[in-house]
Amino acid sequence: MKENLMIRPIAHIQTDFKEKFGIPRQSGRASSLTGRIVFMPDYRNPDALREITGFSHLWLLFDFSKAHREDWSPTVRPPRLGGNRRVGVFASRSPFRPNPIGLSSVRLLGVEKTQNEGDVLLVSGIDLLDNTPIYDIKPYLPFSDCHPEATAGYAEDMQDFSLEVEFPEELLRRLPIEKQSAAIECLAEDPRPAYHDEPSRIYSMAYAGFDIRFTVENQKATVVEVIRL
Amino acid sequence: MKENLMIRPIAHIQTDFKEKFGIPRQSGRASSLTGRIVFMPDYRNPDALREITGFSHLWLLFDFSKAHREDWSPTVRPPRLGGNRRVGVFASRSPFRPNPIGLSSVRLLGVEKTQNEGDVLLVSGIDLLDNTPIYDIKPYLPFSDCHPEATAGYAEDMQDFSLEVEFPEELLRRLPIEKQSAAIECLAEDPRPAYHDEPSRIYSMAYAGFDIRFTVENQKATVVEVIRL
Repeated sequence: MKENLMIRPIAHIQTDFKEKFGIPRQSGRASSLTGRIVFMPDYRNPDALREITGFSHLWLLFDFSKAHREDWSPTVRPPRLGGNRRVGVFASRSPFRPNPIGLSSVRLLGVEKTQNEGDVLLVSGIDLLDNTPIYDIKPYLPFSDCHPEATAGYAEDMQDFSLEVEFPEELLRRLPIEKQSAAIECLAEDPRPAYHDEPSRIYSMAYAGFDIRFTVENQKATVVEVIRL
Repeated sequence: MKENLMIRPIAHIQTDFKEKFGIPRQSGRASSLTGRIVFMPDYRNPDALREITGFSHLWLLFDFSKAHREDWSPTVRPPRLGGNRRVGVFASRSPFRPNPIGLSSVRLLGVEKTQNEGDVLLVSGIDLLDNTPIYDIKPYLPFSDCHPEATAGYAEDMQDFSLEVEFPEELLRRLPIEKQSAAIECLAEDPRPAYHDEPSRIYSMAYAGFDIRFTVENQKATVVEVIRL
Protein backbone atom coordinates (compact mmCIF):
# COMPACT_ATOMS: atom_id res chain seq x y z
CA MET A 1 0.00 0.00 0.00
CA LYS A 2 1.36 3.36 -0.98
CA GLU A 3 0.93 4.91 2.45
CA ASN A 4 3.40 2.54 4.02
CA LEU A 5 6.71 4.24 4.64
CA MET A 6 10.18 2.73 4.77
CA ILE A 7 12.39 4.56 7.23
CA ARG A 8 16.06 4.03 7.90
CA PRO A 9 18.39 4.95 10.74
CA ILE A 10 20.26 8.22 10.43
CA ALA A 11 22.35 7.50 13.52
CA HIS A 12 22.90 5.20 16.49
CA ILE A 13 23.24 6.15 20.12
CA GLN A 14 26.01 4.77 22.30
CA THR A 15 24.98 4.39 25.93
CA ASP A 16 26.15 2.65 29.10
CA PHE A 17 23.40 0.02 28.95
CA LYS A 18 24.06 -3.06 26.86
CA GLU A 19 21.09 -4.77 28.49
CA LYS A 20 17.58 -3.51 29.10
CA PHE A 21 17.59 -4.05 32.88
CA GLY A 22 18.22 -0.73 34.62
CA ILE A 23 17.36 1.63 31.78
CA PRO A 24 15.04 4.38 33.07
CA ARG A 25 11.49 3.92 31.80
CA GLN A 26 11.26 7.48 30.45
CA SER A 27 13.72 10.07 29.26
CA GLY A 28 14.89 12.68 31.74
CA ARG A 29 14.42 10.41 34.78
CA ALA A 30 18.17 9.90 35.11
CA SER A 31 19.38 13.34 34.15
CA SER A 32 23.08 12.43 34.41
CA LEU A 33 22.82 9.46 32.09
CA THR A 34 24.64 10.38 28.90
CA GLY A 35 24.85 9.09 25.35
CA ARG A 36 26.74 9.76 22.14
CA ILE A 37 24.79 10.02 18.91
CA VAL A 38 26.95 8.87 16.01
CA PHE A 39 25.60 9.53 12.54
CA MET A 40 25.54 6.93 9.77
CA PRO A 41 28.07 7.78 7.03
CA ASP A 42 25.31 8.97 4.65
CA TYR A 43 24.09 11.51 7.22
CA ARG A 44 27.47 12.55 8.64
CA ASN A 45 27.33 16.12 7.45
CA PRO A 46 28.12 19.05 9.76
CA ASP A 47 25.71 21.24 7.77
CA ALA A 48 22.80 19.08 8.95
CA LEU A 49 23.55 20.25 12.52
CA ARG A 50 23.94 23.95 11.75
CA GLU A 51 22.57 26.06 14.67
CA ILE A 52 21.62 22.96 16.68
CA THR A 53 23.62 24.11 19.71
CA GLY A 54 21.16 26.96 20.21
CA PHE A 55 18.70 24.34 21.45
CA SER A 56 19.05 22.95 24.95
CA HIS A 57 16.85 19.91 24.28
CA LEU A 58 16.24 17.58 21.36
CA TRP A 59 13.65 14.99 20.42
CA LEU A 60 14.85 11.59 19.36
CA LEU A 61 12.65 9.29 17.31
CA PHE A 62 14.15 5.87 17.75
CA ASP A 63 13.62 2.20 17.07
CA PHE A 64 12.23 0.04 19.87
CA SER A 65 14.61 -2.51 18.42
CA LYS A 66 13.99 -5.16 21.07
CA ALA A 67 10.22 -4.87 20.74
CA HIS A 68 9.54 -5.80 17.13
CA ARG A 69 6.61 -8.20 16.86
CA GLU A 70 4.66 -9.55 13.95
CA ASP A 71 1.43 -8.81 15.75
CA TRP A 72 0.26 -6.11 18.15
CA SER A 73 -1.86 -6.17 21.26
CA PRO A 74 -4.47 -3.45 21.87
CA THR A 75 -3.61 -3.36 25.57
CA VAL A 76 -0.37 -3.32 27.55
CA ARG A 77 0.50 -3.57 31.26
CA PRO A 78 2.67 -0.65 32.39
CA PRO A 79 5.28 -1.89 34.89
CA ARG A 80 4.68 1.09 37.16
CA LEU A 81 1.06 0.00 37.64
CA GLY A 82 2.26 -3.27 39.12
CA GLY A 83 2.05 -5.16 35.85
CA ASN A 84 -1.51 -6.36 36.30
CA ARG A 85 -3.56 -3.40 35.09
CA ARG A 86 -4.17 -3.15 31.36
CA VAL A 87 -4.35 0.16 29.50
CA GLY A 88 -4.70 0.88 25.78
CA VAL A 89 -1.50 0.82 23.77
CA PHE A 90 -2.22 4.36 22.50
CA ALA A 91 -2.65 5.47 26.11
CA SER A 92 0.84 4.20 26.90
CA ARG A 93 4.47 4.71 25.95
CA SER A 94 5.05 0.96 25.83
CA PRO A 95 7.59 -0.24 23.25
CA PHE A 96 5.11 -2.87 22.08
CA ARG A 97 3.02 -0.87 19.60
CA PRO A 98 1.91 -1.18 15.97
CA ASN A 99 4.81 0.96 14.71
CA PRO A 100 7.69 0.40 17.17
CA ILE A 101 8.97 3.97 17.23
CA GLY A 102 9.94 5.60 20.51
CA LEU A 103 10.04 9.26 21.45
CA SER A 104 12.49 10.72 23.97
CA SER A 105 13.47 14.24 24.86
CA VAL A 106 17.10 14.63 25.82
CA ARG A 107 19.36 17.48 26.84
CA LEU A 108 21.97 18.50 24.28
CA LEU A 109 25.34 18.82 26.02
CA GLY A 110 27.36 19.63 22.94
CA VAL A 111 28.82 18.56 19.64
CA GLU A 112 32.04 16.56 19.67
CA LYS A 113 34.22 16.89 16.58
CA THR A 114 35.84 13.54 15.87
CA GLN A 115 38.13 12.24 13.20
CA ASN A 116 36.47 8.90 12.56
CA GLU A 117 32.83 9.53 13.39
CA GLY A 118 32.37 13.10 12.23
CA ASP A 119 30.29 15.40 14.42
CA VAL A 120 28.86 13.46 17.37
CA LEU A 121 26.01 14.77 19.55
CA LEU A 122 26.51 14.41 23.30
CA VAL A 123 23.20 14.17 25.14
CA SER A 124 21.92 13.40 28.64
CA GLY A 125 18.72 12.24 30.29
CA ILE A 126 18.56 9.27 27.97
CA ASP A 127 16.50 6.09 28.35
CA LEU A 128 18.00 4.06 25.53
CA LEU A 129 19.82 0.83 25.04
CA ASP A 130 23.33 0.98 23.61
CA ASN A 131 23.33 1.06 19.81
CA THR A 132 19.65 1.98 19.43
CA PRO A 133 18.90 3.13 15.86
CA ILE A 134 17.78 6.77 15.64
CA TYR A 135 15.36 7.72 12.86
CA ASP A 136 15.09 11.44 13.45
CA ILE A 137 16.41 14.28 15.58
CA LYS A 138 14.31 17.41 16.02
CA PRO A 139 14.85 20.52 18.11
CA TYR A 140 12.64 20.86 21.20
CA LEU A 141 10.42 23.94 20.85
CA PRO A 142 9.18 24.91 24.31
CA PHE A 143 6.42 27.16 22.95
CA SER A 144 4.72 24.26 21.21
CA ASP A 145 6.10 21.16 22.97
CA CYS A 146 5.81 22.19 26.61
CA HIS A 147 2.42 21.83 28.32
CA PRO A 148 2.94 22.21 32.07
CA GLU A 149 -0.82 22.04 32.60
CA ALA A 150 -1.14 18.61 30.94
CA THR A 151 -2.78 15.85 32.95
CA ALA A 152 -1.39 12.34 32.77
CA GLY A 153 -4.21 10.07 33.93
CA TYR A 154 -2.98 6.80 35.43
CA ALA A 155 0.62 7.96 34.95
CA GLU A 156 0.32 10.98 37.29
CA ASP A 157 1.84 9.08 40.21
CA MET A 158 4.93 8.09 38.27
CA GLN A 159 6.27 11.58 38.55
CA ASP A 160 7.11 11.34 42.23
CA PHE A 161 8.18 7.74 42.27
CA SER A 162 11.67 6.97 43.46
CA LEU A 163 13.56 4.59 45.71
CA GLU A 164 16.00 5.74 48.33
CA VAL A 165 19.47 4.49 47.31
CA GLU A 166 22.21 3.39 49.66
CA PHE A 167 25.42 3.07 47.69
CA PRO A 168 28.33 2.49 50.11
CA GLU A 169 31.18 4.87 49.38
CA GLU A 170 33.80 2.16 48.89
CA LEU A 171 31.63 0.47 46.25
CA LEU A 172 30.66 3.72 44.54
CA ARG A 173 34.34 4.61 44.13
CA ARG A 174 34.82 1.55 41.93
CA LEU A 175 32.86 3.39 39.23
CA PRO A 176 34.53 6.15 37.20
CA ILE A 177 33.56 9.44 38.81
CA GLU A 178 31.55 10.58 35.75
CA LYS A 179 29.43 7.42 35.92
CA GLN A 180 28.48 7.64 39.61
CA SER A 181 25.51 10.03 39.62
CA ALA A 182 23.70 8.27 36.81
CA ALA A 183 24.15 4.88 38.50
CA ILE A 184 22.40 6.21 41.61
CA GLU A 185 19.65 7.82 39.51
CA CYS A 186 18.97 4.58 37.63
CA LEU A 187 18.75 2.58 40.86
CA ALA A 188 16.33 5.18 42.29
CA GLU A 189 14.02 4.42 39.35
CA ASP A 190 13.66 0.84 40.59
CA PRO A 191 14.85 -1.40 37.76
CA ARG A 192 13.01 -4.46 39.11
CA PRO A 193 10.35 -6.04 36.93
CA ALA A 194 6.75 -5.46 37.96
CA TYR A 195 5.44 -7.74 40.72
CA HIS A 196 8.81 -8.34 42.34
CA ASP A 197 8.96 -7.85 46.08
CA GLU A 198 11.67 -10.16 47.34
CA PRO A 199 13.89 -8.40 49.87
CA SER A 200 16.37 -11.28 49.92
CA ARG A 201 16.89 -11.30 46.17
CA ILE A 202 20.07 -9.80 44.74
CA TYR A 203 19.52 -8.00 41.42
CA SER A 204 22.22 -7.33 38.91
CA MET A 205 22.41 -4.19 36.77
CA ALA A 206 24.97 -4.14 33.96
CA TYR A 207 26.02 -0.52 33.63
CA ALA A 208 29.05 1.13 32.04
CA GLY A 209 31.04 -2.08 32.08
CA PHE A 210 30.24 -2.90 35.71
CA ASP A 211 27.88 -5.33 37.37
CA ILE A 212 26.09 -3.43 40.12
CA ARG A 213 24.39 -5.80 42.56
CA PHE A 214 21.68 -4.60 44.89
CA THR A 215 18.70 -5.56 47.01
CA VAL A 216 15.41 -3.69 47.50
CA GLU A 217 13.42 -3.52 50.71
CA ASN A 218 10.96 -0.94 52.04
CA GLN A 219 11.40 1.41 49.04
CA LYS A 220 15.15 1.43 49.49
CA ALA A 221 17.80 0.00 47.16
CA THR A 222 21.05 -1.09 48.79
CA VAL A 223 24.11 -1.81 46.68
CA VAL A 224 25.95 -4.88 47.93
CA GLU A 225 28.63 -5.41 45.28
CA VAL A 226 30.22 -3.74 42.26
CA ILE A 227 32.22 -5.91 39.87
CA ARG A 228 34.03 -4.91 36.69
CA LEU A 229 32.63 -6.94 33.81
CA MET B 1 19.48 -3.51 5.45
CA LYS B 2 17.80 -5.08 8.41
CA GLU B 3 17.59 -1.88 10.43
CA ASN B 4 15.21 -0.32 7.93
CA LEU B 5 11.68 -0.30 9.25
CA MET B 6 8.41 -0.38 7.33
CA ILE B 7 5.71 1.57 9.12
CA ARG B 8 2.06 1.87 8.19
CA PRO B 9 -0.70 4.30 9.12
CA ILE B 10 -2.86 3.36 12.08
CA ALA B 11 -5.24 6.27 11.43
CA HIS B 12 -5.91 9.42 9.42
CA ILE B 13 -6.80 12.84 10.70
CA GLN B 14 -9.66 14.84 9.22
CA THR B 15 -9.06 18.59 9.36
CA ASP B 16 -10.42 21.80 7.85
CA PHE B 17 -7.40 22.28 5.60
CA LYS B 18 -7.43 20.53 2.23
CA GLU B 19 -4.52 22.68 1.11
CA LYS B 20 -1.28 23.54 2.87
CA PHE B 21 -1.71 27.31 2.74
CA GLY B 22 -2.95 28.55 6.11
CA ILE B 23 -2.00 25.57 8.26
CA PRO B 24 -0.18 26.77 11.39
CA ARG B 25 3.52 25.97 11.26
CA GLN B 26 3.54 24.24 14.66
CA SER B 27 0.97 22.46 16.76
CA GLY B 28 -0.80 24.46 19.46
CA ARG B 29 -0.45 27.77 17.60
CA ALA B 30 -4.15 27.74 16.65
CA SER B 31 -5.60 26.23 19.79
CA SER B 32 -9.18 26.18 18.46
CA LEU B 33 -8.29 24.28 15.31
CA THR B 34 -9.78 20.81 15.64
CA GLY B 35 -9.39 17.45 13.94
CA ARG B 36 -10.93 13.99 14.04
CA ILE B 37 -8.61 11.00 14.19
CA VAL B 38 -10.24 8.04 12.45
CA PHE B 39 -8.56 4.68 12.90
CA MET B 40 -7.86 2.28 10.05
CA PRO B 41 -10.07 -0.80 10.26
CA ASP B 42 -7.21 -3.00 11.54
CA TYR B 43 -6.61 -0.64 14.47
CA ARG B 44 -10.23 0.26 15.22
CA ASN B 45 -10.35 -1.34 18.65
CA PRO B 46 -11.74 0.49 21.70
CA ASP B 47 -9.36 -1.47 23.95
CA ALA B 48 -6.40 0.28 22.30
CA LEU B 49 -7.73 3.57 23.74
CA ARG B 50 -8.44 2.33 27.26
CA GLU B 51 -7.70 5.11 29.83
CA ILE B 52 -6.66 7.57 27.11
CA THR B 53 -9.16 10.19 28.30
CA GLY B 54 -7.11 10.61 31.50
CA PHE B 55 -4.56 12.43 29.36
CA SER B 56 -5.19 16.02 28.32
CA HIS B 57 -2.61 15.98 25.53
CA LEU B 58 -1.35 13.46 23.00
CA TRP B 59 1.60 13.14 20.67
CA LEU B 60 0.94 12.39 17.05
CA LEU B 61 3.63 10.90 14.84
CA PHE B 62 2.48 11.59 11.33
CA ASP B 63 3.49 11.43 7.71
CA PHE B 64 4.75 14.60 6.05
CA SER B 65 2.89 13.23 3.08
CA LYS B 66 3.48 16.22 0.81
CA ALA B 67 7.19 16.30 1.54
CA HIS B 68 8.43 12.92 0.33
CA ARG B 69 11.61 13.28 -1.69
CA GLU B 70 14.08 10.81 -3.08
CA ASP B 71 16.93 12.86 -1.75
CA TRP B 72 17.49 15.02 1.33
CA SER B 73 19.19 18.34 1.87
CA PRO B 74 21.37 18.89 4.96
CA THR B 75 20.04 22.43 5.34
CA VAL B 76 16.59 24.02 5.17
CA ARG B 77 15.30 27.60 5.20
CA PRO B 78 12.70 28.13 7.93
CA PRO B 79 9.93 30.44 6.63
CA ARG B 80 9.92 32.41 9.90
CA LEU B 81 13.53 33.41 9.33
CA GLY B 82 12.54 35.15 6.12
CA GLY B 83 13.36 32.18 3.93
CA ASN B 84 16.96 33.15 3.26
CA ARG B 85 18.81 31.82 6.30
CA ARG B 86 19.84 28.18 6.24
CA VAL B 87 19.88 25.97 9.33
CA GLY B 88 20.60 22.25 9.68
CA VAL B 89 17.71 19.92 8.99
CA PHE B 90 18.18 18.30 12.45
CA ALA B 91 18.02 21.79 13.98
CA SER B 92 14.62 22.33 12.37
CA ARG B 93 11.12 20.91 12.30
CA SER B 94 10.99 21.18 8.51
CA PRO B 95 8.95 18.49 6.73
CA PHE B 96 11.82 17.95 4.32
CA ARG B 97 13.96 15.50 6.29
CA PRO B 98 15.56 12.09 5.74
CA ASN B 99 12.63 10.25 7.34
CA PRO B 100 9.54 12.41 6.69
CA ILE B 101 7.86 11.89 10.07
CA GLY B 102 6.30 14.82 11.89
CA LEU B 103 5.67 15.29 15.59
CA SER B 104 2.77 17.31 16.99
CA SER B 105 1.30 17.66 20.44
CA VAL B 106 -2.45 18.13 20.45
CA ARG B 107 -5.12 18.53 23.09
CA LEU B 108 -7.47 15.57 23.49
CA LEU B 109 -11.05 16.87 23.57
CA GLY B 110 -12.72 13.49 23.78
CA VAL B 111 -13.64 10.21 22.17
CA GLU B 112 -16.59 10.12 19.80
CA LYS B 113 -18.38 6.79 19.52
CA THR B 114 -19.50 6.31 15.93
CA GLN B 115 -21.28 3.57 14.06
CA ASN B 116 -19.20 3.54 10.91
CA GLU B 117 -15.79 4.71 12.09
CA GLY B 118 -15.57 3.17 15.56
CA ASP B 119 -14.06 5.29 18.32
CA VAL B 120 -12.82 8.59 16.90
CA LEU B 121 -10.43 10.91 18.79
CA LEU B 122 -11.36 14.59 18.78
CA VAL B 123 -8.30 16.81 19.15
CA SER B 124 -7.40 20.51 18.94
CA GLY B 125 -4.33 22.63 18.38
CA ILE B 126 -3.54 20.72 15.23
CA ASP B 127 -1.22 21.73 12.39
CA LEU B 128 -2.10 19.03 9.87
CA LEU B 129 -3.47 18.73 6.40
CA ASP B 130 -6.76 16.89 5.96
CA ASN B 131 -6.30 13.14 5.64
CA THR B 132 -2.72 13.08 6.97
CA PRO B 133 -1.65 9.51 7.81
CA ILE B 134 -0.93 8.98 11.51
CA TYR B 135 1.71 6.39 12.47
CA ASP B 136 1.47 6.55 16.23
CA ILE B 137 -0.41 8.16 19.09
CA LYS B 138 1.25 8.44 22.50
CA PRO B 139 0.10 10.06 25.72
CA TYR B 140 1.84 13.31 26.67
CA LEU B 141 3.72 12.84 29.95
CA PRO B 142 4.40 16.28 31.45
CA PHE B 143 7.03 14.98 33.86
CA SER B 144 9.26 13.80 31.03
CA ASP B 145 8.01 15.76 27.99
CA CYS B 146 7.73 19.27 29.43
CA HIS B 147 10.89 21.38 29.70
CA PRO B 148 9.87 24.98 30.41
CA GLU B 149 13.53 25.95 30.78
CA ALA B 150 14.43 24.76 27.28
CA THR B 151 16.11 27.25 24.98
CA ALA B 152 15.15 27.37 21.30
CA GLY B 153 18.05 29.10 19.56
CA TYR B 154 17.03 30.82 16.34
CA ALA B 155 13.41 29.82 16.98
CA GLU B 156 13.05 31.81 20.23
CA ASP B 157 11.43 34.74 18.49
CA MET B 158 8.72 32.61 16.89
CA GLN B 159 6.98 32.31 20.19
CA ASP B 160 5.70 35.86 20.25
CA PHE B 161 5.04 36.21 16.57
CA SER B 162 1.52 37.09 15.51
CA LEU B 163 -0.37 39.37 13.17
CA GLU B 164 -3.23 41.56 14.29
CA VAL B 165 -6.37 40.28 12.50
CA GLU B 166 -9.24 42.43 11.32
CA PHE B 167 -12.14 40.15 10.39
CA PRO B 168 -15.24 42.27 9.73
CA GLU B 169 -18.24 40.93 11.64
CA GLU B 170 -20.46 40.49 8.57
CA LEU B 171 -17.78 38.35 6.88
CA LEU B 172 -16.98 36.37 10.03
CA ARG B 173 -20.66 35.43 10.39
CA ARG B 174 -20.51 33.57 7.09
CA LEU B 175 -18.43 30.92 8.84
CA PRO B 176 -20.12 28.39 11.14
CA ILE B 177 -19.73 29.68 14.69
CA GLU B 178 -17.49 26.77 15.72
CA LYS B 179 -15.06 27.56 12.90
CA GLN B 180 -14.63 31.27 13.63
CA SER B 181 -11.97 31.33 16.37
CA ALA B 182 -9.63 28.97 14.54
CA ALA B 183 -9.92 31.03 11.33
CA ILE B 184 -8.73 34.11 13.20
CA GLU B 185 -5.95 32.16 14.91
CA CYS B 186 -4.67 30.79 11.59
CA LEU B 187 -4.64 34.25 10.01
CA ALA B 188 -2.73 35.60 13.02
CA GLU B 189 0.01 33.07 12.26
CA ASP B 190 0.60 34.78 8.90
CA PRO B 191 0.05 32.13 6.23
CA ARG B 192 2.04 34.04 3.60
CA PRO B 193 5.12 32.40 2.12
CA ALA B 194 8.46 33.76 3.27
CA TYR B 195 9.67 36.92 1.47
CA HIS B 196 6.20 38.18 0.63
CA ASP B 197 5.52 41.79 1.50
CA GLU B 198 2.93 43.02 -0.97
CA PRO B 199 0.22 45.04 0.77
CA SER B 200 -1.92 45.16 -2.36
CA ARG B 201 -1.93 41.41 -2.86
CA ILE B 202 -5.05 39.44 -1.95
CA TYR B 203 -4.27 36.02 -0.47
CA SER B 204 -6.70 33.15 -0.43
CA MET B 205 -6.96 30.62 2.41
CA ALA B 206 -9.14 27.54 1.84
CA TYR B 207 -10.53 26.65 5.24
CA ALA B 208 -13.49 24.54 6.33
CA GLY B 209 -15.11 24.76 2.89
CA PHE B 210 -14.68 28.53 2.60
CA ASP B 211 -12.30 30.73 0.68
CA ILE B 212 -11.10 33.42 3.07
CA ARG B 213 -9.47 36.31 1.22
CA PHE B 214 -7.22 38.76 3.00
CA THR B 215 -4.46 41.30 2.65
CA VAL B 216 -1.50 41.95 4.96
CA GLU B 217 0.02 45.32 5.73
CA ASN B 218 2.00 46.59 8.74
CA GLN B 219 1.68 43.31 10.68
CA LYS B 220 -2.07 43.31 10.26
CA ALA B 221 -4.22 40.87 8.26
CA THR B 222 -7.51 42.26 6.94
CA VAL B 223 -10.17 39.91 5.62
CA VAL B 224 -11.80 41.32 2.50
CA GLU B 225 -14.04 38.45 1.36
CA VAL B 226 -15.41 35.08 2.48
CA ILE B 227 -16.85 32.77 -0.17
CA ARG B 228 -18.34 29.33 0.26
CA LEU B 229 -16.36 26.89 -1.90
